[in-house]
Amino acid sequence: MVGAKSREQSDEESKQQSPVLKSQGQLIIIGGAEDKEGDCTILREFVRRASGRGAKIAVMTVATSLPGEVGSDYRDIFERLGVEKVDIVDTERREDASDPRYLEILKEATGVFFTGGDQARVTDVLKDTEIDKLLHERFAQGLVIAGTSAGAAMMPDIMIVEGEAETNPRLETVTLEPGMGFLPGVAIDQHFAQRGRLGRLISALIQQPAVLGFGIDENTAIAVKEDEIEVIGEGAITIIDVANITHTNVDETLHDESLAICGAKLHVIPHGYRFDLRKRECKC
Amino acid sequence: MVGAKSREQSDEESKQQSPVLKSQGQLIIIGGAEDKEGDCTILREFVRRASGRGAKIAVMTVATSLPGEVGSDYRDIFERLGVEKVDIVDTERREDASDPRYLEILKEATGVFFTGGDQARVTDVLKDTEIDKLLHERFAQGLVIAGTSAGAAMMPDIMIVEGEAETNPRLETVTLEPGMGFLPGVAIDQHFAQRGRLGRLISALIQQPAVLGFGIDENTAIAVKEDEIEVIGEGAITIIDVANITHTNVDETLHDESLAICGAKLHVIPHGYRFDLRKRECKC
Repeated sequence: MVGAKSREQSDEESKQQSPVLKSQGQLIIIGGAEDKEGDCTILREFVRRASGRGAKIAVMTVATSLPGEVGSDYRDIFERLGVEKVDIVDTERREDASDPRYLEILKEATGVFFTGGDQARVTDVLKDTEIDKLLHERFAQGLVIAGTSAGAAMMPDIMIVEGEAETNPRLETVTLEPGMGFLPGVAIDQHFAQRGRLGRLISALIQQPAVLGFGIDENTAIAVKEDEIEVIGEGAITIIDVANITHTNVDETLHDESLAICGAKLHVIPHGYRFDLRKRECKC
Repeated sequence: MVGAKSREQSDEESKQQSPVLKSQGQLIIIGGAEDKEGDCTILREFVRRASGRGAKIAVMTVATSLPGEVGSDYRDIFERLGVEKVDIVDTERREDASDPRYLEILKEATGVFFTGGDQARVTDVLKDTEIDKLLHERFAQGLVIAGTSAGAAMMPDIMIVEGEAETNPRLETVTLEPGMGFLPGVAIDQHFAQRGRLGRLISALIQQPAVLGFGIDENTAIAVKEDEIEVIGEGAITIIDVANITHTNVDETLHDESLAICGAKLHVIPHGYRFDLRKRECKC
């Protein structure tokens, strides 16, 4: 612990770092395994926010190795919820990300849904392509973008590609890579309670320039709009705020050594709760 | 959330609730699966605190269904570490807890070690017996008491008997019963990271009169002496402080509904770190 770093920040400093959505768009970030047969609470809310029955939904199957099957499943669900126009955007290779048909679909879409799979595929295929650029432009203007599991993982500017669950925080616990950057300045982990990922989320959060980490349970989502998130679904959201931690040893720690954080803030909030991203406080 | 409780406490109030060991004794509370073949860091530290080579160790096998085997294993380990006097206290039934031979052993012991097994067995067999009374008397005078897994679970005044892992906090997630009360005013869970027990620990903590919850990883322990804990071992200790939470819905929540806590404090500290129980702060 000798020479370990002590961090004290003024409220003003840490407020400046708070992640706030500056675009007009909304995000629905789902922890995986969302209900697709019962009430479909989360998918229903996505459709509602994406213009309801008049929505034009594009299903992005880039993350999955079974795009035909997964795409068709989501098409069925969204049609069952009353959406008249559902298109599948199946970008298998980077070339596909400039396909005029796909760009046309995404120009018209009111809601875009990223399926689960492997988050590294999302960035490998889409990052810095025409689809990437178009999605960010349309998101700035008000597009609703949802993603589940891998589709949730890719939302921040730095994403967890893979990592070890059910262990204490260490640098080696996670592999991080640039994400799609729809919600910069946060760390996100999914399947959170179900896979015991507290240590993994802290490991990711502490090594990036972010003050808030979100652990999203299965069949649970956060809806992000401007400076507010709302929790939807069955489980809870675990929020870890390291803006004002009094100590961490991250700068002195080798890869396989245990990380310490002292004085972080912890919120665990279920369905219906809201969280102010600017003040970094529950609204309750 | 309508009518949900808001809690604000002054620092002074919450300091008064801080759990501080008022006895002269020490506790070594182990998250299970401590190393028994390699460095034996934790068991070594227990022996050292219990008078080193001159220690007289009593192994309490009450929790396990294999007392012969488990007792003999620990006897071998402690003898390998240089302890000359190791006795097994095998209380299978409540009558055994007034056996003069066992009481004699415990009168002489400098260290008492509770094995793993089923924590409900510890209280069923020992609570309010002569052994219970003697252990508390000797603990007040300086006895070192260690416990692993079930032997850790029984340390607080209210213990987790069983519970669901890898889920978000709900009242139904844990079954609580009176523990042995060596460290009152805390909630303790063991195998913490390895079994994804964040939700379970919060569920226990929020329903009892305690402000601090300790999640202890496997092969990791807290050594408690007066108002200080020290972390020993391979993993980390996750400390959740709910003294100054700004909101919880626990009073309005039915058994199967999701709990909320807002504004808790979170510390995750590994080997060598110390935590001040009175100030509820890391010492670093």
